[in-house]
Amino acid sequence: MTTKPHSDLHYMALAIQLAKQGLYTTSPNPRVGCVLVKNDEIIGQGFHIKAGEGHAEVNAIADANERGNLTKNATAYVTLEPCSHFGRTPPCAQGLIDAQVSRVVSAMTDPNPEVAGNGFAMLRAAGIEVVDNCLAGESAKLNPGFIKRMSMAGTEHKPVPYVRLKMATSLDGRTAMQSGESQWITGPEARAEVQKIRAQSCAIICGADSVLIDDPSMNVRISADCTDGSLQQIRQPLRVIIDSQHRVKSKAKIFTLTGKVMIASPVEPEHRIISEFCEVSYLQSAASQSHQVDLTTLLEQLASQGINEVLVESGAKLAAAFIQQDLVDELVMFTAPTLLGSDARPAFNLPFAKMEQQIRWSWQDVRMVGNDLKLVLTRKI
Amino acid sequence: MTTKPHSDLHYMALAIQLAKQGLYTTSPNPRVGCVLVKNDEIIGQGFHIKAGEGHAEVNAIADANERGNLTKNATAYVTLEPCSHFGRTPPCAQGLIDAQVSRVVSAMTDPNPEVAGNGFAMLRAAGIEVVDNCLAGESAKLNPGFIKRMSMAGTEHKPVPYVRLKMATSLDGRTAMQSGESQWITGPEARAEVQKIRAQSCAIICGADSVLIDDPSMNVRISADCTDGSLQQIRQPLRVIIDSQHRVKSKAKIFTLTGKVMIASPVEPEHRIISEFCEVSYLQSAASQSHQVDLTTLLEQLASQGINEVLVESGAKLAAAFIQQDLVDELVMFTAPTLLGSDARPAFNLPFAKMEQQIRWSWQDVRMVGNDLKLVLTRKI
Repeated sequence: MTTKPHSDLHYMALAIQLAKQGLYTTSPNPRVGCVLVKNDEIIGQGFHIKAGEGHAEVNAIADANERGNLTKNATAYVTLEPCSHFGRTPPCAQGLIDAQVSRVVSAMTDPNPEVAGNGFAMLRAAGIEVVDNCLAGESAKLNPGFIKRMSMAGTEHKPVPYVRLKMATSLDGRTAMQSGESQWITGPEARAEVQKIRAQSCAIICGADSVLIDDPSMNVRISADCTDGSLQQIRQPLRVIIDSQHRVKSKAKIFTLTGKVMIASPVEPEHRIISEFCEVSYLQSAASQSHQVDLTTLLEQLASQGINEVLVESGAKLAAAFIQQDLVDELVMFTAPTLLGSDARPAFNLPFAKMEQQIRWSWQDVRMVGNDLKLVLTRKI
Repeated sequence: MTTKPHSDLHYMALAIQLAKQGLYTTSPNPRVGCVLVKNDEIIGQGFHIKAGEGHAEVNAIADANERGNLTKNATAYVTLEPCSHFGRTPPCAQGLIDAQVSRVVSAMTDPNPEVAGNGFAMLRAAGIEVVDNCLAGESAKLNPGFIKRMSMAGTEHKPVPYVRLKMATSLDGRTAMQSGESQWITGPEARAEVQKIRAQSCAIICGADSVLIDDPSMNVRISADCTDGSLQQIRQPLRVIIDSQHRVKSKAKIFTLTGKVMIASPVEPEHRIISEFCEVSYLQSAASQSHQVDLTTLLEQLASQGINEVLVESGAKLAAAFIQQDLVDELVMFTAPTLLGSDARPAFNLPFAKMEQQIRWSWQDVRMVGNDLKLVLTRKI
């Protein structure tokens, strides 16, 4: 009995699954997976784990070698065009050439202007067959921030990260009682999901008000029950506080945890906060007309530091500012099955008077997370 | 080759599908389906279409006869206990006895105190094997209002209908701009779905404010594109206006359409509205402490008139009153992917100050309807 060989789509889907294992660790690099196949059998596989360490292709080749498999004449499935330049590691295209693969199937061209087709050209020049755009859409979802940042690099606009804005509300769109009482609107599963969104973010942005009122830790605390292998190596995302008037005090919980905290303000503080637990930095940011931090400039500054994905976790005012300035790529809303009433606090301080001012979104995902509903939407263009 | 005979569950599921064909027409009777099976073959089937016409069992027996099939020794699958009393039609239990079936499988006991086990007793007395509780939960969903009304009949409480409350909101829980501008928040598919919910309701309740401000028709206008066979015979639900101060005028659109309109108020009007298009009646209703219509009494009055299912389509104030008095069985919310802002009107005027006042619900269904999300929740006990 003969069976039909697996298709390119099949192996690329596996490569994408591998890439996902780097979801919480590769920043500022993209998540990339690679599968090496010969005679319809997987002879090696790998994914990029951490910046400065081996890329997916290199790891897959090493895996094949360790297993005693010869890579000569194999097909390599990679979720992103192999790099052609020397960065912290040698170019992966050269690695594949040296491994003598005969065919490379890629999900998408690297949007990084330093690569952008050069990897493919290098492979073709070595006589390797190259196929591109295999599951490009699925691969793009792995790296929304990296792709956005790199794609903007070649345009008139300064690059900015991919911005997610998270909000947890009641059925009637409220986030807290007027008094501020809000614990807990959503359940433990939704809160655990937020931890995962934080873990895949390079930076979390909050406002001074949130720090002063809620005193959040804004760090990643994945508990044992939602840990899988890849979560062992979690980075703590950069915690950015937008604090134009330097109101946040050093006793805030956010300064008592390991990692990095950045305070953004248009003005220099009188006294800089120093913490024995975390690295505190100050970002002199451009001022908006209202003497607040100019959000676009802040995002540009973060992108220039290699920040791909940002999570905004803020109150109604700052969230509204991000939305009104059209800086939010993705809205993540958790809806709890409860009514908090019309005196409770709104999710977004958006003072619209006419329907034509409404801001419309496109559904991306709707699913239950525990007893709450998780809605993911992107800005409707 | 021999095949395994179909199970009781299989035929009951078919009977439930049949019963659903009466969704828009049986009121005030329950929706009931019946399948007659002999030697693992369906020999007849039927469902109740309209009060005063044949019950499901009678229709199924007639179908078998028409097809030239003998019902002797058949098994009858019925979604509700066969009735034992003479109503507008002879008892169905007797019909099954006369048809000489040997076995009756029922989904659930009839909650009607006039039946409640008597149908089964009558069948057993005739030597027929009776099996109950086959897909009881699924069958109960066919008739939430009938079951609630009948189940309460034997208690200290006066029966009230099953109350659905429908609300269409933005992602931030708003129903209209402050000015009242609201057309359209949800899309045509969601609005067509509301038509179907209206069509299965015995009565629609709205407030005088809605009539004065929005001038709705509150009738069923199923358009050709969402019509199936059963929709040909749609009843127009009773349109109930809660108008304590008799503010609604005869020129309102609601009086220009066929069907019945009932105006509920604790006081007699100075002048009664008369319409050449519809039947207008007045319901003298008990007054609440605030001289408004007492909602519980109103619902009791409607139940006593055979109203099983009520749909509340109202503004934030009346909706909140129904919710605060714990009169809503089912919340149906359509969520449009848009933000209307914090100055827009809230869905429910619920002036809560503390989290402990929140009103929690249980998810029943979440699905996309066109480009909007339809959420169905029931009151959390």
